[in-house]
Amino acid sequence: MQITFLGTSSGVPTRSRNVSSVALRLPQRAEIWLFDCGEGTQHQLLRSDLRMSQIRRIFVTHMHGDHIFGLMGLLASCGLAGNVEEVDIYGPPDLDEYLKASRRYSQTRFAYPIRVHTVQPGTVFEDAEFTVKCLPLKHRVPAFGYRVEEKDRAGHFDVEKAKELGIPSGPVYGQLKRGDRVTLADGRTINGKDLCGSTEMGRKVIYCTDTVYCEAAVELAHDADVLIHEATFAHQEAEMAFQRLHSTSTMAAQVALAAQVKSLILTHFSPRYAPGNPVELHHLLDEARAIFPNTYLAKDFWTYEVPRRLASTLSAMT
Amino acid sequence: MQITFLGTSSGVPTRSRNVSSVALRLPQRAEIWLFDCGEGTQHQLLRSDLRMSQIRRIFVTHMHGDHIFGLMGLLASCGLAGNVEEVDIYGPPDLDEYLKASRRYSQTRFAYPIRVHTVQPGTVFEDAEFTVKCLPLKHRVPAFGYRVEEKDRAGHFDVEKAKELGIPSGPVYGQLKRGDRVTLADGRTINGKDLCGSTEMGRKVIYCTDTVYCEAAVELAHDADVLIHEATFAHQEAEMAFQRLHSTSTMAAQVALAAQVKSLILTHFSPRYAPGNPVELHHLLDEARAIFPNTYLAKDFWTYEVPRRLASTLSAMT
Ligand SMILES: [Zn+2]
Ligand SMILES: [Zn+2]
Repeated sequence: MQITFLGTSSGVPTRSRNVSSVALRLPQRAEIWLFDCGEGTQHQLLRSDLRMSQIRRIFVTHMHGDHIFGLMGLLASCGLAGNVEEVDIYGPPDLDEYLKASRRYSQTRFAYPIRVHTVQPGTVFEDAEFTVKCLPLKHRVPAFGYRVEEKDRAGHFDVEKAKELGIPSGPVYGQLKRGDRVTLADGRTINGKDLCGSTEMGRKVIYCTDTVYCEAAVELAHDADVLIHEATFAHQEAEMAFQRLHSTSTMAAQVALAAQVKSLILTHFSPRYAPGNPVELHHLLDEARAIFPNTYLAKDFWTYEVPRRLASTLSAMT
Repeated sequence: MQITFLGTSSGVPTRSRNVSSVALRLPQRAEIWLFDCGEGTQHQLLRSDLRMSQIRRIFVTHMHGDHIFGLMGLLASCGLAGNVEEVDIYGPPDLDEYLKASRRYSQTRFAYPIRVHTVQPGTVFEDAEFTVKCLPLKHRVPAFGYRVEEKDRAGHFDVEKAKELGIPSGPVYGQLKRGDRVTLADGRTINGKDLCGSTEMGRKVIYCTDTVYCEAAVELAHDADVLIHEATFAHQEAEMAFQRLHSTSTMAAQVALAAQVKSLILTHFSPRYAPGNPVELHHLLDEARAIFPNTYLAKDFWTYEVPRRLASTLSAMT
């Protein structure tokens, strides 16, 4: 499970940062899920080691241009690149109409099925391995944060050891795999947990943009392994952040702290903090770390491997 | 008068070529006119030495995504970059509706006036220095080629010489400036042409894409200084070119030859001719040069200064 940042600038691209997009790579299923798709996202993908043909789902936070103007081009190129099977797109109410209008005016035909899902607070996607939920954030237009939860996986059941213990095959294996305590026909009592490795706890990645500090972000991010949160402004621009309903570095850190996340990655930076300006991004980082130490600054093409929690952490939590 | 190619790939961007856009720089008025605006055009401008704030007019050939998906982002960024005064956009019938829908769904507000003009065959713009005309080409959707004509400028009138000749000031100077023959009150006859430098002939730049070979392209390009013509395919893909209504290198050269242009620049290349493939772009160049020797291949960020015709060329033509 790897996060690759494809665009980390707010509003407009700069020479070193494109507008918003984040790729979540799920190697176990050879899929990429995108979060937002600003103009030039397909160009960034070309320059990354991600394969456009693996894009399977796209989650859109809100309808501002710097988050959606790359969608049509990306979808069209996915079709021309071939071997894209289908794409599901999730987003706010206007997204479907916008894509329909753009397809109609540009006479774009896609060679593969595209389904657009209008999201509502709650679960927007679920299968055997993942759940994706969203909650409304606080921005000038309807905006949703997304929470991707990998489901917990039962520890590996040691069949060899069970056989060595002479446990007869049958439904009892299922009970033991679930970690139940079982009394056998010969009177022995076996604790399933002794035959199972520890549970692999699923990882939780949260994407919160665009928003000013809000309780929904805290709720959405609760106990996350990684919280990706916008930090358009430095703390000294807090007033502007409140006016435009964007976050400062310190707001993002307060969300991380209140939600008890493991790590915080800041993104969606105003170009005013580019190198050479009076305030630079390392100031935003320092401000955030003063509140939430395990904070990082995103940059374009940075890939972050989401770590699994250690067993000790796991048992401490259960 | 300089032409800078911002995107020279057809359909999809590659690592070295973006989708269509060409900038015409008019230094005498500190203006840039764009022709087409594929996704990522604003990113290309950022990487060029052109200033986005100088964009004054945008001419759109047709509604296919690789020619228009950069428009909204560019227009939005022009507004945020400040000091853009106004932008006039010219294009096919659906362009206005497309932009209106995109603005509405993305809730984009521009801080400067944007006027969208639906073009019809003939003159689409004229002022004291320039005329822009268009003609319909032959593509799968309505597509227009554009002809930019710089108006001829009268040669410099030598006031000092007129004074030396003792010509009294008054309306007679106006007649002499126009090159008229004038009889003065003292009986002398003066030929205005003797007091004027030679006429500076205006340059003509033509942009033809997307189209299969067509007579309208020949008509539009007549006597051009520079013809920019699409060459999506090599000659061996002529059948595909006819099916998809694109041009081969040889079709573009035939237009240049028939229109008696001074130079031809090929662009809008299929990614199939990227280096390392069986047929590469120098093949397309050779094919075109066999028909029209003064042919060039466009590439991204190449700037071509449109030469003025020499006086000898001029008199040979008049
Ligand atoms: Zn935004
Ligand atoms: Zn095209």
